[in-house]
Amino acid sequence: MLAPGRAGCPAESATGDRAFLQALLDAEAALTRAQASHGLAPEAAARAVTAAADQARFDLQALALRARDGGNPVIPLVADLTAAVGREWGPYVHRGATSQDIMDTAVMLMAARTLSLIDADLGRAEQALRSLAAAHRDTPMPGRTLTQHAVPTTFGLKAAGWRSLVLDARDRLRTVRSSLPAQLGGAAGTLAAFIAFGAERATTLPATYARELGLAAPEIPWHTLRTPVADLAGALAFTAGALGKTAVDVLTLSRTEIAEVSEGAGGGSSAMPHKANPVRATLIAAAARRAPGFAGTLYLSMAAEDERPAGAWHAEWEPLRDLLRLVGGAARDAAELAEGLRVHADAMREHLDLTQGLIVSERLSAALAPILGRARARSLLTELAARAHRERRPLAALLREAPEAAGIDVDDVTDPTRYTGSAGALTDRALERS
Amino acid sequence: MLAPGRAGCPAESATGDRAFLQALLDAEAALTRAQASHGLAPEAAARAVTAAADQARFDLQALALRARDGGNPVIPLVADLTAAVGREWGPYVHRGATSQDIMDTAVMLMAARTLSLIDADLGRAEQALRSLAAAHRDTPMPGRTLTQHAVPTTFGLKAAGWRSLVLDARDRLRTVRSSLPAQLGGAAGTLAAFIAFGAERATTLPATYARELGLAAPEIPWHTLRTPVADLAGALAFTAGALGKTAVDVLTLSRTEIAEVSEGAGGGSSAMPHKANPVRATLIAAAARRAPGFAGTLYLSMAAEDERPAGAWHAEWEPLRDLLRLVGGAARDAAELAEGLRVHADAMREHLDLTQGLIVSERLSAALAPILGRARARSLLTELAARAHRERRPLAALLREAPEAAGIDVDDVTDPTRYTGSAGALTDRALERS
Amino acid sequence: MLAPGRAGCPAESATGDRAFLQALLDAEAALTRAQASHGLAPEAAARAVTAAADQARFDLQALALRARDGGNPVIPLVADLTAAVGREWGPYVHRGATSQDIMDTAVMLMAARTLSLIDADLGRAEQALRSLAAAHRDTPMPGRTLTQHAVPTTFGLKAAGWRSLVLDARDRLRTVRSSLPAQLGGAAGTLAAFIAFGAERATTLPATYARELGLAAPEIPWHTLRTPVADLAGALAFTAGALGKTAVDVLTLSRTEIAEVSEGAGGGSSAMPHKANPVRATLIAAAARRAPGFAGTLYLSMAAEDERPAGAWHAEWEPLRDLLRLVGGAARDAAELAEGLRVHADAMREHLDLTQGLIVSERLSAALAPILGRARARSLLTELAARAHRERRPLAALLREAPEAAGIDVDDVTDPTRYTGSAGALTDRALERS
Amino acid sequence: MLAPGRAGCPAESATGDRAFLQALLDAEAALTRAQASHGLAPEAAARAVTAAADQARFDLQALALRARDGGNPVIPLVADLTAAVGREWGPYVHRGATSQDIMDTAVMLMAARTLSLIDADLGRAEQALRSLAAAHRDTPMPGRTLTQHAVPTTFGLKAAGWRSLVLDARDRLRTVRSSLPAQLGGAAGTLAAFIAFGAERATTLPATYARELGLAAPEIPWHTLRTPVADLAGALAFTAGALGKTAVDVLTLSRTEIAEVSEGAGGGSSAMPHKANPVRATLIAAAARRAPGFAGTLYLSMAAEDERPAGAWHAEWEPLRDLLRLVGGAARDAAELAEGLRVHADAMREHLDLTQGLIVSERLSAALAPILGRARARSLLTELAARAHRERRPLAALLREAPEAAGIDVDDVTDPTRYTGSAGALTDRALERS
Repeated sequence: MLAPGRAGCPAESATGDRAFLQALLDAEAALTRAQASHGLAPEAAARAVTAAADQARFDLQALALRARDGGNPVIPLVADLTAAVGREWGPYVHRGATSQDIMDTAVMLMAARTLSLIDADLGRAEQALRSLAAAHRDTPMPGRTLTQHAVPTTFGLKAAGWRSLVLDARDRLRTVRSSLPAQLGGAAGTLAAFIAFGAERATTLPATYARELGLAAPEIPWHTLRTPVADLAGALAFTAGALGKTAVDVLTLSRTEIAEVSEGAGGGSSAMPHKANPVRATLIAAAARRAPGFAGTLYLSMAAEDERPAGAWHAEWEPLRDLLRLVGGAARDAAELAEGLRVHADAMREHLDLTQGLIVSERLSAALAPILGRARARSLLTELAARAHRERRPLAALLREAPEAAGIDVDDVTDPTRYTGSAGALTDRALERS
Repeated sequence: MLAPGRAGCPAESATGDRAFLQALLDAEAALTRAQASHGLAPEAAARAVTAAADQARFDLQALALRARDGGNPVIPLVADLTAAVGREWGPYVHRGATSQDIMDTAVMLMAARTLSLIDADLGRAEQALRSLAAAHRDTPMPGRTLTQHAVPTTFGLKAAGWRSLVLDARDRLRTVRSSLPAQLGGAAGTLAAFIAFGAERATTLPATYARELGLAAPEIPWHTLRTPVADLAGALAFTAGALGKTAVDVLTLSRTEIAEVSEGAGGGSSAMPHKANPVRATLIAAAARRAPGFAGTLYLSMAAEDERPAGAWHAEWEPLRDLLRLVGGAARDAAELAEGLRVHADAMREHLDLTQGLIVSERLSAALAPILGRARARSLLTELAARAHRERRPLAALLREAPEAAGIDVDDVTDPTRYTGSAGALTDRALERS
Repeated sequence: MLAPGRAGCPAESATGDRAFLQALLDAEAALTRAQASHGLAPEAAARAVTAAADQARFDLQALALRARDGGNPVIPLVADLTAAVGREWGPYVHRGATSQDIMDTAVMLMAARTLSLIDADLGRAEQALRSLAAAHRDTPMPGRTLTQHAVPTTFGLKAAGWRSLVLDARDRLRTVRSSLPAQLGGAAGTLAAFIAFGAERATTLPATYARELGLAAPEIPWHTLRTPVADLAGALAFTAGALGKTAVDVLTLSRTEIAEVSEGAGGGSSAMPHKANPVRATLIAAAARRAPGFAGTLYLSMAAEDERPAGAWHAEWEPLRDLLRLVGGAARDAAELAEGLRVHADAMREHLDLTQGLIVSERLSAALAPILGRARARSLLTELAARAHRERRPLAALLREAPEAAGIDVDDVTDPTRYTGSAGALTDRALERS
Repeated sequence: MLAPGRAGCPAESATGDRAFLQALLDAEAALTRAQASHGLAPEAAARAVTAAADQARFDLQALALRARDGGNPVIPLVADLTAAVGREWGPYVHRGATSQDIMDTAVMLMAARTLSLIDADLGRAEQALRSLAAAHRDTPMPGRTLTQHAVPTTFGLKAAGWRSLVLDARDRLRTVRSSLPAQLGGAAGTLAAFIAFGAERATTLPATYARELGLAAPEIPWHTLRTPVADLAGALAFTAGALGKTAVDVLTLSRTEIAEVSEGAGGGSSAMPHKANPVRATLIAAAARRAPGFAGTLYLSMAAEDERPAGAWHAEWEPLRDLLRLVGGAARDAAELAEGLRVHADAMREHLDLTQGLIVSERLSAALAPILGRARARSLLTELAARAHRERRPLAALLREAPEAAGIDVDDVTDPTRYTGSAGALTDRALERS
């Protein structure tokens, strides 16, 4: 009810309690299979655990409450899973592992699965932004700095910039995705229990286990070396910020007074039937405000004492899930926003005249300086600018009346649509990237 | 599954989606009743809306999904509630209000209800800590600074300090609780629609509405004046930190090498049946790491543009709920922790001798200086300290062999249990507060 | 160079290294004086320490570097101060205290002094906003929600809201200011050393010391009970957010397309001489983005282990100073902003017509419903709204042509300046507060 | 005075106001040189600007105060630099650029220079940790989880883990370092002014400029595409956390009761001459608590509206500098800490016996299960563990008395030094990485 930004998005179900429970079970099953392939457990045990590892067979609510005793859900889950596989194969459940092996691995699985869904939505957003940038490569609009019109730019360059950020985010998420490791170390990360149970090549067991799960093999156990979690934090916060850029631009350009873009289907209002609110952009902007706090909590947890910390680890679980959901929701909204965005080139064009031509004063400086000298050019412009503002007359008209400016092509130098610099070429360059 | 810190705690159900939906409905019903009492709606309409305002009659999941269109759940809820009250009284549902009036009010209701539950758990913790402090008023233990033994203190003073923080937190939460206002302003906070519907004393309507809900009357609409939310953020982050202090102390004192306290029922481990982990303290410590990030997000949302911001408001909902839950869970755990804490006074006493008496070197300085002069007193102590450490012999023994120290009562000045200063008196003073 | 928001503001010098060094020395001098008044030191020692406690006599840079050994500047400072007061009175310097007693007290002194300066600037801002609100009590303007025109409001109500937040901030800062305590407890907070040096009423010494400094007397030593720091964090983050609200509104209303307000002296641009940027608002907005992070770090430090924590305490110093500076700079900028703000009532009036009258559609609903029934009223309005938008004709004109609407006073109900509801009365109410 | 963590460290001077002023001047000089090499300015102008671009010639304090007008220091600096190069070449100063081009470039230069210094200190830390890990490859010690002894590990594996994190940090910083781009786009990022001044290949000018500065060439102007700043934020927060892991471990292991390591030169205390505080670890831990907040602020600034945002950009400068200093100080402290750390292998060995052998109960389970069956093995161990704890007798002694356990080699299975699993092999593997 309080989360319209993520309600119903793919990342939401991929991070739900049921999905996480399945990830825990997948980790347990992979552990027994890995041991079987190392000769530490019978193949039948591996099959039995794998068969039993179906979340639908477990009581989620009860597990959550029983997790309070030991502080994590693995302890009660192992009890239930052991019971489920029966007396014969029970001893091969969770054998040699520690709770954190399973928790960390399940979190990585959940992250990996969610990142794939986010990647797809970023792909949709990127495609739509590419089309917008290409279609509006030469659509001039006011460039705005510190809320004020500065000089002209193009909507194409703006959209190409949005797309660049989406690609930057996608690249960072993919890099992290491919490095997410399984966790396996036993009680203190030495793999000692596996040796006690007979493993001859204990240091290769984690790689086997990781392969079963489609995760990367860890160099050493990372119970308190939290690189994977920190990398996720950074890449996800980056993505929220990257999408947030598009959102704040759309919010600005959607303002009643500006109206240079509109969301495809603006949201209604309970009190005013005529309003079309930029709801997708609003929800993305809200996500971009929240993500940094979660990332901060996760970076903080890197300073994790001992072989398992009392608090730093527990403080990771919800923030990481929340961050995945937040970014998952924002990516879905960004895709919808980009695909549905309507661009009002006419409004952009009109606004270029709002400052009576002062938006090209930079160009006029450059044009007049060679003729009048830099100082006189500047003072003349200051004078004309003041008059243009005061008299509400276009600078072009005033320039035509100024004898000193006789030598310049007023039409050309005061046309804001002819002062977009390299915006087109930069757009092309940005769109070459894939 | 990822939240053992709050699983099953009272604050969790008080902040659930069902509870929030009921708060939204309570707000709508109160609004119609308030209008009825101002003559703006028939009493029958008020009764009808009140009767229909039962969360069990609404489809939560569908509302959450339909909330995406407009960015908040009030719009679809008003549609459903209007349908539920029927053709005759439907027009009196949500009349004159804006979505934010209902959302903000419901959030305040949810907060107020949750704060009452937290208050009760803080009360339990405070009582238990009072008993511990009183019982151990004169139990000496090492005072520790920057991880090293400094001079003796008492467990009574430590527990009294924990309790002081709990009281500080309780006081701040109560202050905020009593100030939480209802929200009522209409589309732009001017109450204009109520006047259009015939209100003669529109500016008094919010107070009537607030009274119906047990909330404070707002001075003016606070759609973008977010004092109540910021105050909640501060008081809740404070509470998490206050409980966190107890938690980190318990974690330190529970260490295998220290073992001066144990949690009543330490949590088990999946791999090592003998371990008794300080699970309650761990979960509280985790909450104390997470709360500041949520508070930061909420403070950030104070800079809310216009009459309703596009993002800052939406970024408040989940963080505020998460903060209520986090603190609610921590308060419950703190109560359990304090009530169950076992104190090992013998271990504390033993540890006072760990530094071979150096823990009272400060006192020896004071005792020897009048006899030997300050400089010689210091050099003698430095010398003896080095020997005590090197030879692993008690400072008292070395002192007895030192002719220069003949004039002092070695037994007295080297007894760490006689160097607890005003710890007892300070404990008494702290316990006087209620 | 990187801090134009605070450059040259009063809070900057009050928090500089020299000012902090003086605060440390003030604490040391007050400590000796307090001991003298308790008969624990000769009056002459108190006079000597007080005389020597002048920051100009100490080498700041060298102290800062020597602070690295022990992790805080008190240790080298005590050595230098002891040397400065000479052989006779040297022993009375810092006697019985611990570094943290002096550091914490000095930080509280610095905070108290800076809060007074901030209070003055908030007072200036409040006065200027009061004048703006009173002058524009009845100046209508568009109310904006989610970036879109909603219904009319007044600039008076907006400015009164800004002022309310300033008063909320001022009240919170004053409450905190009056509660800031001195710190005195000795090595582990038991006051033991003072007793060793002969104090008979050791528990009253902190109050004497606090009185010397104009700070509150602590109930018990608060070395690891960080209520004062957390309260400062909350009140300062609140203030930054409160001022941030005004800033983001000014930024929006200053946009080239809106231009309903301008900063008195907008900042220039290096490239475009005509631009007048809302620089004060920009710098305040930047402060409001940064303050929550600092507050978060300070709340986090509440979970401080033992009698002095290894890290949590050290992590407070710079964030607290930064927060004081940030808010001090923002308060100065807010005063300048409010005092210089120019309000363009004509632009506000013009914009009320931007939606062709749809800004009063809410009122029209209320007016037409009794005549046409609620459903027909709504459908007629939806129809006319679509036409108004499409044909760019005012809703008033279309209404006059609609036979169904014959019974209503079109001029009245479509005049946006007559639909400001209780904005005036709410402004009056808000301005009554002082 | 409030920053012992960074006082005097290389990063501090590299980020000082003088250093930043020089970076601004370096950017201006490079801009003119780049234009000269494109034929847009005379070579003599480039030489003149380069010669004048010496920070010692400018009034820092005055620039900082004048920066308030426009909100950044470039505007007054350009005025002073233009005056400094004289009438003839003055027009070629800052030509075509916007303030943000220079600010952003200077910030990147400052970051690049500081990262090189940090890299050197990380290198020192890494070398020292490698030596520690190699020297203690087989030094057994208790593995600790949730504050309790779990199973044995080795100090070698712990130190190798610390080193892995240092390498992870170094790799991330190097990747970011090599990607830091110069900024050049002109007022709205279109390079339009350069074309107005005659550039034929304007889109290649930024690369020339970047080459002059040793920075990467930007694909397109990134005034509001803040990838470089966000990447810095992430890598620096990562580094603080990575070093924080070592710090919190050292703090724990330095505790009076544990004393398994000591800092080479522990810091003194003002009140207790015998104390040796882990000051380096304390300061690093403080940095690790603060860094996430700064990173959060920087990620937040990614959502930067328009072609230059009003606040988001200004909110980056100080946090980025603070983060560079914080991490720079922590890296220096980490190098000193690692180089000076003393390891007490005897204490580690002693502590392995603290639990009366329960630390190897996991191994006993594995050894007894094949003999007694899993259930009986577990119940026997639970029974013996309780007795060992109660009677304070070693588990080994009790086992020898237990007839059921006759078949096992008690000496072997209860020797904690023979239960370190693959710790040695994992250490070797970790040290292979460079």
